Amino acid sequence: MYMGLSSEQLSELRKNLEKEHSEIKSRGLALDMSRGKPGPDVLDLATGMLSLPAGSYKAENGFDCRNYGIPDGIPEAKRMFASMLGVEENEIIIGGNSSLQMMYDAVARALLIGVSEKTGPWGSGVKFLCPVPGYDRHFSICESMGIEMINIPAGGDGPDMDAVERAVARDASVKGIWCVPMYSNPTGIVYSDETVRRLARLKPKAADFRIFWDNAYCVHHLTENPDVLLNILSECKSAGNPDMVYIVGSTSKISFPGAGVAMLAASAANAAFIKKHIGYQTIGSDKLNQLRHVQFFGGLEGIKAHMRLILDILKPKFDTVIECLNAELSGLGSWHEPKGGYFISFDGMPGTAKRVVALCKEAGVVLTGAGATFPYGRDPEDRNIRIAPTYPSLDELKAAMEVFCVSVKLASVEKLSGG
Amino acid sequence: MYMGLSSEQLSELRKNLEKEHSEIKSRGLALDMSRGKPGPDVLDLATGMLSLPAGSYKAENGFDCRNYGIPDGIPEAKRMFASMLGVEENEIIIGGNSSLQMMYDAVARALLIGVSEKTGPWGSGVKFLCPVPGYDRHFSICESMGIEMINIPAGGDGPDMDAVERAVARDASVKGIWCVPMYSNPTGIVYSDETVRRLARLKPKAADFRIFWDNAYCVHHLTENPDVLLNILSECKSAGNPDMVYIVGSTSKISFPGAGVAMLAASAANAAFIKKHIGYQTIGSDKLNQLRHVQFFGGLEGIKAHMRLILDILKPKFDTVIECLNAELSGLGSWHEPKGGYFISFDGMPGTAKRVVALCKEAGVVLTGAGATFPYGRDPEDRNIRIAPTYPSLDELKAAMEVFCVSVKLASVEKLSGG
Repeated sequence: MYMGLSSEQLSELRKNLEKEHSEIKSRGLALDMSRGKPGPDVLDLATGMLSLPAGSYKAENGFDCRNYGIPDGIPEAKRMFASMLGVEENEIIIGGNSSLQMMYDAVARALLIGVSEKTGPWGSGVKFLCPVPGYDRHFSICESMGIEMINIPAGGDGPDMDAVERAVARDASVKGIWCVPMYSNPTGIVYSDETVRRLARLKPKAADFRIFWDNAYCVHHLTENPDVLLNILSECKSAGNPDMVYIVGSTSKISFPGAGVAMLAASAANAAFIKKHIGYQTIGSDKLNQLRHVQFFGGLEGIKAHMRLILDILKPKFDTVIECLNAELSGLGSWHEPKGGYFISFDGMPGTAKRVVALCKEAGVVLTGAGATFPYGRDPEDRNIRIAPTYPSLDELKAAMEVFCVSVKLASVEKLSGG
Repeated sequence: MYMGLSSEQLSELRKNLEKEHSEIKSRGLALDMSRGKPGPDVLDLATGMLSLPAGSYKAENGFDCRNYGIPDGIPEAKRMFASMLGVEENEIIIGGNSSLQMMYDAVARALLIGVSEKTGPWGSGVKFLCPVPGYDRHFSICESMGIEMINIPAGGDGPDMDAVERAVARDASVKGIWCVPMYSNPTGIVYSDETVRRLARLKPKAADFRIFWDNAYCVHHLTENPDVLLNILSECKSAGNPDMVYIVGSTSKISFPGAGVAMLAASAANAAFIKKHIGYQTIGSDKLNQLRHVQFFGGLEGIKAHMRLILDILKPKFDTVIECLNAELSGLGSWHEPKGGYFISFDGMPGTAKRVVALCKEAGVVLTGAGATFPYGRDPEDRNIRIAPTYPSLDELKAAMEVFCVSVKLASVEKLSGG
């Protein structure tokens, strides 16, 4: 919207925005829109769980959850979370409190040992496809283990499947792809049926290629009529690629980020292989916490009912951000109104994201670092910013968004003025 | 004690023992002395913990334990467990519920990434020293990752240090040694001061050699006047090898095996490196469970008081086993009366251990598989059996030991009779 302005008009506008930014700075704000954390109001909804398990400490199979054993999880937890992820009970492994850890461990295991009895370790020179913008912690896993990351542009339907198909077909060192298929982190989009089907039908040169399907937001809707994501495992089976996908999920944003339950789902063959190797790593995850979750939620319907309570808290926060963006920044960037998940992704004018983050920081608002949504922290266009609206209160969020909008305007005017 | 018998006497004895074994078989027992698990009576002592945390969910630093963060643990948990392991607070990382997992992950990390910024990945061709008999799950970690294991004989003072010194000095591919220094699994011995000092003073050819110091039983005494284990980290510092040791511990046999708290301690430099990499793997372990443990025990004194309650339950079980062995098997094997820990190690006549385990199984008593206390499950002399007396009730234990003693006698007579 500033494109048609004369240099004098730009200069005047810049002066006004600088003044406005300066005034905001003087307020001494200390707000955080950087991480996808629930606020205490959301955590309170699940806190009743902490007096559980009560009465018996036995799983339905009679196993004392206080003691060693059952590395893949108690049956009732497997059943509840299998239904959440749309898989069978022999296709799921219940882990500790972190799906990130299950992904990290899956990558480490593949590098060191392999993904099946038939294939050897991935070894060195491994590459991963990274739809961008994406989740920084996925990229950190690769970077920490020396896995080369290849950017794949992602749009409203998910990753550019032409690019994905080409990359996996020609290079056997491409061993994986990171996907957040539902309410993608950070763009909030849901993979289209066509995208899911093309992923399931991939013909990778590497027999030990795996899709890392991070379904972190599978029940995290912000609408009563949510989109439906196609079941990747079913599609992979239909396509003759049953072993090509690892699905993970967790209750980190259902119950507690610090003390939830994580899970990994895959074909029965994959699950058996992983279970075998998890058996070398641990005698079992925290089964009392599994039981606690099952007693609290009862089943998938209980989880869904709980998510509707969370929706009531989060929806107004997302609405606030979208309203601010619509009211203040049209013409200065683009964004998508997500129907679920935890983030809003803002694409500003090229070359402004770092500056916006810096201006926000000066004024007391912490955003996710510019570039964090790209491998190696390098946004080639320096334009993407991830907004995480869930943690601040509504009032804090309004204040933070005021800072954000002024900062985007100022950074844009600076850019148009030549710096 | 059967050595001086004539073949006729042996034959007569064998017939009687077979009859006795057969009679026991007909009782239809189903007893388990195979794993180091606490019984429900021990678990009940800590079950009050499950209504915690109560009131506030905040750590002493104000952090909401329900939420993401603090990958190395809340300060009060670090303090309590640092004092348990005899290290400083900046030398400890609180993990999930499994010290086995922290060891597995440490080995995997070393293979893939290394043990410091200065050294690269351990890579392939790695060897570990394994004092024998030892803990089967240590050996499984190595086996699952293709690490070659070298047996080191261990006696009443710990591993044969001449053999250890020679092995680490001549071969840079020797990257680690497994140690259970206090109430060793399975022999129950405590490493002597001299052994600890010689370990701390090792001059390994590999700069990235690490001692894996599994101090699982550091407070698990069966006497009011326990042995004192020398502090390996202090000794390593004095010897100029501050980074050479990883210490692990857990509350698996203090609170709950399925839902305890595990920890890893090491030099501040090691801890910083590990914390950095754990930060790629997880956003944090279960902090509510850390808080639960701190609120329940209060501190190290509370842990010690709790262990005295556990002593009251476990001591009679160990006494029962030792009394049976003394009364029935003198001359047919050797054993050590442990002052703590979870096991009694029985060395029978060479070539009898597998047969004893099989005879016990026939009669309804499950023992740890013969050979399990050696790398690759191969006891070169086929004589070591690990007895785990903690899980069965006292009556069950008496019944199981009757089976054990008859089985040892029968296997010994069979052996002396030529099979």
